[in-house]
Amino acid sequence: MTDSSAYPDFSKSADGLLPAVAQCAETGAVLMLAYMNAESYAETLATGRAVYYSRSRGRLWRKGEESGHVQEIRGVFVDCDGDAILLKVHQRGQASCHTGRVSCFFHQATPDGIQIVSDPIIDPAQLYGKKHD
Amino acid sequence: MTDSSAYPDFSKSADGLLPAVAQCAETGAVLMLAYMNAESYAETLATGRAVYYSRSRGRLWRKGEESGHVQEIRGVFVDCDGDAILLKVHQRGQASCHTGRVSCFFHQATPDGIQIVSDPIIDPAQLYGKKHD
Repeated sequence: MTDSSAYPDFSKSADGLLPAVAQCAETGAVLMLAYMNAESYAETLATGRAVYYSRSRGRLWRKGEESGHVQEIRGVFVDCDGDAILLKVHQRGQASCHTGRVSCFFHQATPDGIQIVSDPIIDPAQLYGKKHD
Repeated sequence: MTDSSAYPDFSKSADGLLPAVAQCAETGAVLMLAYMNAESYAETLATGRAVYYSRSRGRLWRKGEESGHVQEIRGVFVDCDGDAILLKVHQRGQASCHTGRVSCFFHQATPDGIQIVSDPIIDPAQLYGKKHD
């Protein structure tokens, strides 16, 4: 074990939030990028489920709290300088994106423009309002 | 092609910077997280090499400009709401991290603390001051 006080170091950002990347533990796909504060990070480690801080809602965001599509933690990693977080997760329900897609990164950019390169696997209208345990 | 004006949308952050995740195109490993401004993003697309914005140096950071370990772009993706970027890259020299490791995410966190889970593959002392094409 090494000194854990600096990893992650939430004081490195003015608003106390660090970016957290969720990666599918099974396929390696990068699923989404969200933000964590110290409280959401601690709850993630303690509960084994991904908890972010929603900047738009201004509160903790327990991923899957509405859709049931929780992210079960398989590993938590912090980068070399303690200001970015990587979560390896099992994504329940497969779709991590609110659009019903596996990944949020479905716009591919080239010098010619932007193209949508994946389709929803779930109807987002069915995704919300549905409660799971 | 869809409307590309909002992807990515650099106006979504107060400082005009968006997080950019670099993923190894061959293995799927998440290598690092850095930041881009509109200029570095445009140069990345135009040149096919990853260009970030260094917050500590306050200028464009052409990844590999000192070490020669450039990141050749295999794909650029933008997330659902246009405020995060994913680069699939071929990492020349294999080590993306300034510590000489393949990935910057080498601190694994558990409720018990932090552990270093990978070793350098290159001596960082040999990494800098060396110029490559």
